[in-house]
Amino acid sequence: MRDFSADHRWLSINTATLRKSRGEDLPLPDILDLCAKRGVRAISPWRDQVAAAGLANVSKLVKSHGFELSGYCRGGMFTATDDAGLRAADDDNRRALDEARELNAACLVLVVGALPGALAGKAAHKDIALSRQQVHDGIGRLLEHSRAAGMPLAIEPLHPMYAADRACVNTLEQALDICDALDPSKSGALGVAVDVYHVWWDPKLQQQIQRAGNKRLLAFHVCDWLTPTTDLLNDRGMMGDGVIDIPLIRGWVEGQGFAGYSEVEIFSTGNWWRREAAETLDTCIARHRSVV
Amino acid sequence: MRDFSADHRWLSINTATLRKSRGEDLPLPDILDLCAKRGVRAISPWRDQVAAAGLANVSKLVKSHGFELSGYCRGGMFTATDDAGLRAADDDNRRALDEARELNAACLVLVVGALPGALAGKAAHKDIALSRQQVHDGIGRLLEHSRAAGMPLAIEPLHPMYAADRACVNTLEQALDICDALDPSKSGALGVAVDVYHVWWDPKLQQQIQRAGNKRLLAFHVCDWLTPTTDLLNDRGMMGDGVIDIPLIRGWVEGQGFAGYSEVEIFSTGNWWRREAAETLDTCIARHRSVV
Repeated sequence: MRDFSADHRWLSINTATLRKSRGEDLPLPDILDLCAKRGVRAISPWRDQVAAAGLANVSKLVKSHGFELSGYCRGGMFTATDDAGLRAADDDNRRALDEARELNAACLVLVVGALPGALAGKAAHKDIALSRQQVHDGIGRLLEHSRAAGMPLAIEPLHPMYAADRACVNTLEQALDICDALDPSKSGALGVAVDVYHVWWDPKLQQQIQRAGNKRLLAFHVCDWLTPTTDLLNDRGMMGDGVIDIPLIRGWVEGQGFAGYSEVEIFSTGNWWRREAAETLDTCIARHRSVV
Repeated sequence: MRDFSADHRWLSINTATLRKSRGEDLPLPDILDLCAKRGVRAISPWRDQVAAAGLANVSKLVKSHGFELSGYCRGGMFTATDDAGLRAADDDNRRALDEARELNAACLVLVVGALPGALAGKAAHKDIALSRQQVHDGIGRLLEHSRAAGMPLAIEPLHPMYAADRACVNTLEQALDICDALDPSKSGALGVAVDVYHVWWDPKLQQQIQRAGNKRLLAFHVCDWLTPTTDLLNDRGMMGDGVIDIPLIRGWVEGQGFAGYSEVEIFSTGNWWRREAAETLDTCIARHRSVV
């Protein structure tokens, strides 16, 4: 396992982590500037932040700062109630692929979607098996474009507490079943994003990381699980403040040959997003070296 | 699958559902009285409620009302930081077994525990594999007493969002692996409690219910998953108000031969516990007939 203690060369900052500073929105160019000043080499931006700053502008900034992208957040949301909805999702995902390519991302991360309408509080139906079939089919269609663009797709299994409204792929095993079905040759075009927050609880985690192997392990995300957790979405902890044995999981991932960035992704309405972004970033760097 | 629409003979009320009426604690004898007046035939009481009312008193009331117990809530919490803690858990679990026997429960439900100290906000360690081993060993020790007492143990896999602080058994597959290891002959002494709230998201749910079979399916609990869910513990929904396809899952369970009660267990600080308990109970009965 790589030694992270001496520097932060393998740290990537998911830009959602610094989305807010003292509760106010922080524009992506300012986030990039903060990261560059601290010698952060990699980022993973969110589409809405890129759109707000303008893709061409962000592309220029990424190049001028010399950033790599450990991933691009995000494609997915494949489920819908009708064909028009499915086609709209396809179109949007192809645009996400183009953006990821423009920014030279390592992969496009997929949050696959769940029961249509549930995120707005009103699920159109309760048929999670149907949603899972739509996700499978949608990834299959996107994969053709992904191969053509040379942009790998990373399915991110989300914690089961998001099964209703954000992602109906909820375990690494389930994500890898999709990979095996759609890309049996392990071409490298389709794999998974392992976020410790979503998978740390899984009794089959080590086994499934081994099953994934280096060909399927496209991204590694860290934060921590707090006790208590006061909000299902926006109460993620800073690494070291919760109960996840992050080095154990990183060891499993790197044991398969993964040599990419360790990407920090923290959503924290009540704590980190209230602080000065510079403080949050400095803490990310310190914790990356000490507890990741 | 049984037709529940004509009456509520197969309804059981987990007494936590009526724990509060208009926000005030409702004593167990009052809960039993409410249930009896509406022809509810079965209950599943919590230990703290029984202790507050007195075991002998509750036992007398259960007999005079003619209630069956679909389960007794709960044993478990097997994890600890030292031998003294493990022994204390063993002792407490044997007392729970005795109480379950006194009340003639169908099974003792086990919420197995997780990282010691996490429920109080300060986990003693991050080694979930160690906790899982302690749970396995603790169930093994309790099983000897369970066999002697003729009181089956029902492992309840809890939703993965409770893996840190309440239960480190988080899927039906994991629970059944424990059952197979400790009771390979499927004697009936060890099985599972299937609560739709905890398992509805699992892509392997149908497969694992089939694996469990009638010998291992000891209890069936219902409520609903709300979107959004505003609290990790106490925002469970009334059946029909959320996204779980309850009849689908009940069909799978009954397809294995399960013919026991459908037990309603709702924790709801913000809604149902604020209402009059009689209204909550009437709604449970109506929904049992219409959407379970």
